[in-house]
Amino acid sequence: MDLLPVPLKIIRREGRFRLTPSFGACVLGRPAPRIFGAATRMLGRLAGRTGMFFPQDFITAESPDVKLPLRVECRRPGSVRLGEDESYGLRVGPARIVLRAECDLGVLRGLETLFQLLSVDEGGYYFPAVTIEDRPRFPWRGLMIDVCRHFLPLEIVKRNLDAMAAVKLNVLHLHLTDDQGFRVECKTFPKLHELGSDGRYFTQEQMREIIAYADDRGIRVVPEFDVPGHATSWLVAFPRLASAPGPYKIQRRWGVFDPTFDPTNENVYKFFDKFFHEMSGLFADEYIHIGGDENNGKQWDANPAIQAFKKRLRSADNHALQGYFNGRILKILAKHGKKATGWDDILRPGVPKDMIIQAWRGNEFVAEAVRQGCRALLSKGYYIDLIQPAAEHYLNDPAPAGMLLNSAQRKKILGGEATMWGEMIDQETVDSRIWPRTAAIAERLWSAAEVRDVDDMYRRLGWVSLRLEELGLTHEKNYDMMLRRLAAGADISALRTLVDLLEPVKLYARHAQTKDFTSHSPCTRIVDAARPDSRAAREFEKLVDALLAGKKEAAEAVRARLLSWKGNHEALAPVIRRSPILREIIPLSENLETVSELGLECLDRLAAGRTAGEAWGREKRKLIEAAKAPCAQTELMIVPVVERLLQAASS
Amino acid sequence: MDLLPVPLKIIRREGRFRLTPSFGACVLGRPAPRIFGAATRMLGRLAGRTGMFFPQDFITAESPDVKLPLRVECRRPGSVRLGEDESYGLRVGPARIVLRAECDLGVLRGLETLFQLLSVDEGGYYFPAVTIEDRPRFPWRGLMIDVCRHFLPLEIVKRNLDAMAAVKLNVLHLHLTDDQGFRVECKTFPKLHELGSDGRYFTQEQMREIIAYADDRGIRVVPEFDVPGHATSWLVAFPRLASAPGPYKIQRRWGVFDPTFDPTNENVYKFFDKFFHEMSGLFADEYIHIGGDENNGKQWDANPAIQAFKKRLRSADNHALQGYFNGRILKILAKHGKKATGWDDILRPGVPKDMIIQAWRGNEFVAEAVRQGCRALLSKGYYIDLIQPAAEHYLNDPAPAGMLLNSAQRKKILGGEATMWGEMIDQETVDSRIWPRTAAIAERLWSAAEVRDVDDMYRRLGWVSLRLEELGLTHEKNYDMMLRRLAAGADISALRTLVDLLEPVKLYARHAQTKDFTSHSPCTRIVDAARPDSRAAREFEKLVDALLAGKKEAAEAVRARLLSWKGNHEALAPVIRRSPILREIIPLSENLETVSELGLECLDRLAAGRTAGEAWGREKRKLIEAAKAPCAQTELMIVPVVERLLQAASS
Repeated sequence: MDLLPVPLKIIRREGRFRLTPSFGACVLGRPAPRIFGAATRMLGRLAGRTGMFFPQDFITAESPDVKLPLRVECRRPGSVRLGEDESYGLRVGPARIVLRAECDLGVLRGLETLFQLLSVDEGGYYFPAVTIEDRPRFPWRGLMIDVCRHFLPLEIVKRNLDAMAAVKLNVLHLHLTDDQGFRVECKTFPKLHELGSDGRYFTQEQMREIIAYADDRGIRVVPEFDVPGHATSWLVAFPRLASAPGPYKIQRRWGVFDPTFDPTNENVYKFFDKFFHEMSGLFADEYIHIGGDENNGKQWDANPAIQAFKKRLRSADNHALQGYFNGRILKILAKHGKKATGWDDILRPGVPKDMIIQAWRGNEFVAEAVRQGCRALLSKGYYIDLIQPAAEHYLNDPAPAGMLLNSAQRKKILGGEATMWGEMIDQETVDSRIWPRTAAIAERLWSAAEVRDVDDMYRRLGWVSLRLEELGLTHEKNYDMMLRRLAAGADISALRTLVDLLEPVKLYARHAQTKDFTSHSPCTRIVDAARPDSRAAREFEKLVDALLAGKKEAAEAVRARLLSWKGNHEALAPVIRRSPILREIIPLSENLETVSELGLECLDRLAAGRTAGEAWGREKRKLIEAAKAPCAQTELMIVPVVERLLQAASS
Repeated sequence: MDLLPVPLKIIRREGRFRLTPSFGACVLGRPAPRIFGAATRMLGRLAGRTGMFFPQDFITAESPDVKLPLRVECRRPGSVRLGEDESYGLRVGPARIVLRAECDLGVLRGLETLFQLLSVDEGGYYFPAVTIEDRPRFPWRGLMIDVCRHFLPLEIVKRNLDAMAAVKLNVLHLHLTDDQGFRVECKTFPKLHELGSDGRYFTQEQMREIIAYADDRGIRVVPEFDVPGHATSWLVAFPRLASAPGPYKIQRRWGVFDPTFDPTNENVYKFFDKFFHEMSGLFADEYIHIGGDENNGKQWDANPAIQAFKKRLRSADNHALQGYFNGRILKILAKHGKKATGWDDILRPGVPKDMIIQAWRGNEFVAEAVRQGCRALLSKGYYIDLIQPAAEHYLNDPAPAGMLLNSAQRKKILGGEATMWGEMIDQETVDSRIWPRTAAIAERLWSAAEVRDVDDMYRRLGWVSLRLEELGLTHEKNYDMMLRRLAAGADISALRTLVDLLEPVKLYARHAQTKDFTSHSPCTRIVDAARPDSRAAREFEKLVDALLAGKKEAAEAVRARLLSWKGNHEALAPVIRRSPILREIIPLSENLETVSELGLECLDRLAAGRTAGEAWGREKRKLIEAAKAPCAQTELMIVPVVERLLQAASS
């Protein structure tokens, strides 16, 4: 089975439901209208996958044909809000499929499971007979997308919503404002988007389209308006609301900047009252995210009036002053019928208990938040912009068994969110940073805590990745496209062989290694084409593991790979010569040759049973160390694997 | 030089302008604001191609830095309308680039030329020193996109506008209404889009976005409201305006259908008066296309009142009655400040001379239209939905030298339009049907009539195709994606080897071969992945041409190809076994093996100088004939080439 996320209970039964062109669906019960679009889309996806011409066109509420083999039953209309019932039961028999749920949100989840069950044998397409009972472990399973650092237009958000639905995520958190851009139309204060966005923002009609599209897929949209720091783009239009005199310009670089709202200025609260009045009408969800992170306090410290205010308030520090500010903002939100979420910087003694704290700096903030009576989300460990392997995210649990909490506190852990920060991505690359790794996080948040087999996760992730392409995601297809551009018309095979083994540097190393990167710098270089979680390197590592564990039959596969890599530079060098943008990878291509040669030498020694002396090992280790150094902001992922071969061969 | 379209005059000079990170542009003169966005986008494209970090972010009107190396000069703001000056002069010197134009539309065209000049040598990126004077041969260079048969959302239209701009096309003709869908929001009669579109239509805000996006690129948007036939989707909402009683349902199939507006019903003209009042406000262009094609007259013939009206009117036939209808519609358009274009069905004695006739049934309608004093566009021969090779479109001239017209009549030939009819495409495949072939048509309409070298066109088309990917076009990248889906996770190399040699059947053969195709049928099969103008087959044909012309050195390349194709079925068969959607291509894959074997046999005979007898030839010709038969609505394009080898080997 390739189901991802793994359902709560699954029982395989005898038999197969054969998919034929007479397939079709009927919907019974009292669902919300979104169920019909979802069922129709599922039929279209099945047709697309199988090439079958199904006679049914749009599945509607009018006179359902109960003779059709897929029967969907639903007790009541669902509501896309925190805590709604998403459970479903799916029973596939040889002649019928029945999908039952309390509300249509469960049906949406179940339809995705059914689609993942589609299988093939010599007789054609079929669904295996199963009985599944399923519901999520956590009610808040999110993906945050930062559309500020690089704006991402509507269609990118939409296709990512489709992908989220495919892996049962249910919250899209849109980071809508930051130093680099104010990304939503504001009718009350139009200068906000007019002066703060370079013309790159969502109109309200587009935002409503996103919300409706998400709602159709059972996904909430939580907007983030990050205050009081990360606020440059607001202050371009309204410098008088800042804690230091303006003027301000849209920030083009990355980092933590000074411009901050003035918490002592009553006009600030009047402004936010009107602002949140409008935004509370635009966004349907009960929650608004107010950010609150990384206020560096410099403008506050430098402003005597703010210092005096702090003393009057008996605020010990800027953190407490921000607490005062948050309190005012929360009151405004409450007035407009909204509750707040915020980054863990907000957490302090006395923080209102109805706030949801999103832990980004450390998993311990989850525990601290729920101990204080707040509810909490985990994002630390789910920072997909940092290019870490899916396995690390996968094993990162919002509520691990070892966490010292009572059961009431545990219940306050609502789930988590993958965070797609936008400094180092653009429209071409963003999908490849989100997918397929976010599917691993989706499983962590949906499936039982005990589902932790990393190899099996990677196996299923390969299938998910392929399926996501059907929804228009570009994480796979933009790879070759970028390589074609880089190769400037030359054959890309040798280039792909190298880049398949590269990953962008991890964590914040790319920021450190490219100082002059701004919001208009190109995202078209090798580091952008390279993707996290090199599959080729992982497979090679498995083979070497096997070899070193004594499985001699792995040696041939290891040798074949090393041989092909060894000859790659010769094929790639002429391509690089004709494309100056590739010159920065010459050392990487040479290193691949060197390291592969070394690997082959190690293989020979291991095979002959004549390991070399320490001196040889020390000498060769220098090659390894040199090849480990990042180049063009990427790393050659097989180097540590060859290092292990070297270790074995020289000990 | 890889320029496409070829400019009017080009002089190569000594020297190269070296592109460095200090590159930047200043805009002088009195342009329309669109020039700044265009220059900024060009800078971004240069950065994307070269990986250079240019310091300039947004190029604006404020204080241009005249020290920057690219200097753009523009005398006046351009207006995106028929006949606007699009000429430009471009002078690249070793230290400076100057782009001069009468108005900013010329600048847009010149920037695309400059971008195409970007070259590479051992020193890096450069522009060759040139002097170019350029202007279009025809003022109307269009692409029609049918968004009715399959709706194509906003982002697809936008990326195609980018592609159009890249090859200097200047009219997007949107076929907005047809039997299968009414695709634009109508506020006066909201039932039109509510009942006639399955919810798949452009909102007016989206339509304004398209028009603004096109205007930014110097492209007009001409909407088509096809009447009185092809009108089912209108009549779903307003059956009383039809020539026969309703009710009507949105049409799901393809063809010519009966539902037609009633030309004798005054309410019809009241309706259109209000309708075109609204649409005249929405669409900025001076022209509205009123369709007028393929009214089969059945409803008119069957309606006694219409027959009686025709007699009173002394209309000899339905054609004349449609002339009456058109006359009324034209008056309505004129009242709202618009002029009309229409399909050549409208052409009849007395047709108003200010109409533009779009010839789709035959090139002779162009001559007939201009002799009658109308202006004319050619689309016959530019039907890109019919999968013909680019060469055929390329050599099809709107005003060939042999056309017997005087010079005043010749001037009335405005240009032409590629037509992307939408029956057999969807969002995934449409780009591959439009591009790159439409670039060949773009050159026909821009460049001098004497530019007719097919081989050189194909050479440059390869470059254009690669460059169009940078603008987000999916004609290349969706190919592998579709093959991945078809192969269901298996390696796609063998599948690609076969499909590289397949083309969808031409003209209307696919309609004939897939009777049950509807608007919700899958467009995900081999015929959809296969593309027009197989490059691999064309290259093979060139090699065989060379061989048969006595160039013996070509034999090795021919043999290598045939050998690799001969072994392909063995690699592909297991992939097909695991993916039922591929079963229909088994005969194609087997034929590739058979035909390649035959080709190798012919090569051996030719090499040995021992041609076989007629009997052998007749026997083998049966194989060829069998392999020529279409399968899975595709054709194996090397069969006729191997047939020529056979001919040579058996004569």
